[in-house]
Amino acid sequence: MRRIVFALVAVAALAGVVASMAPASGQADQEAAPIFGVKIPPGYRDWRLISVAHEEGNLNDLRAILGNDVAIKAFREGKLPFPDGTIIARVAWSYDPLEESEKAFGRRQSFVAGPPKNGVQFMVKDSAKYASTGGWKYAQFDDGKLFTDAAKLQACFECHQAFKDHDYVFTNYAP
Amino acid sequence: MRRIVFALVAVAALAGVVASMAPASGQADQEAAPIFGVKIPPGYRDWRLISVAHEEGNLNDLRAILGNDVAIKAFREGKLPFPDGTIIARVAWSYDPLEESEKAFGRRQSFVAGPPKNGVQFMVKDSAKYASTGGWKYAQFDDGKLFTDAAKLQACFECHQAFKDHDYVFTNYAP
Repeated sequence: MRRIVFALVAVAALAGVVASMAPASGQADQEAAPIFGVKIPPGYRDWRLISVAHEEGNLNDLRAILGNDVAIKAFREGKLPFPDGTIIARVAWSYDPLEESEKAFGRRQSFVAGPPKNGVQFMVKDSAKYASTGGWKYAQFDDGKLFTDAAKLQACFECHQAFKDHDYVFTNYAP
Repeated sequence: MRRIVFALVAVAALAGVVASMAPASGQADQEAAPIFGVKIPPGYRDWRLISVAHEEGNLNDLRAILGNDVAIKAFREGKLPFPDGTIIARVAWSYDPLEESEKAFGRRQSFVAGPPKNGVQFMVKDSAKYASTGGWKYAQFDDGKLFTDAAKLQACFECHQAFKDHDYVFTNYAP
């Protein structure tokens, strides 16, 4: 099966315009609308790697898709749908050409991760609780602040519907 | 400090021509020349993520740099040199445009990880044992087979010398 990330592109595409709209008083542990509100899962940066991707255009980032233990097990076993308790994280950084590499190769060669960019996004599986959005809760944090625009978060689900046959998940496991 | 991966580019650049030169009888646990021979560290794919990168040119891949527990602790604390026992892994996959994303955006947008590509590379720190190569052992596995061309592996060290001030490691931790 073709490996795909396409990861949360629709919402990520909003990240640039969203940053300035996020409430300045927001906290990382803030609770928002019941469907899309979620706290940042502790320790997500320690989770294992599912796959990597590069987004062009306004996103212009390098990104990694990480999964908690439930997610990794499910990805590796290739079983669908993902079980309740699955959490998938998308982290991203700026897409920076590496000067040292350019000098060594005499042309552009290497692009590396710069500072964090486009927020951090999560999909949380609870087939009963989030039944109205395919069993998944979608959340985004910009600079640690929960993004609370319910209408724009609803767009996550709408875009992910294109991957209903893969339980709404764009990413496949990169072995 | 600028985040850099540039990861093992010199050796990685050889991977394409190297694959067909690797001994067909080689095994993943084969021991080669004492300086550069190394077994694939078990469970490296479960290691935590250090950073991600994209290489253009002949490499044309998406890659992830993973680290064992010793490596991750050292990267996060920012202490140099890396302690003995540090192991850094570079995994890579083909750089594939995602058709679904192209359709949705009306132009090229997403590039995702395809099949594994350009082998798997490791740096293993033992300041006494590998003193002649900056305290690091360099190794590459192509399709699970240890790459044993000592002269070409020596090129790893020679290229990494450009990063002597960062203990010969190209990559910085992506938070």
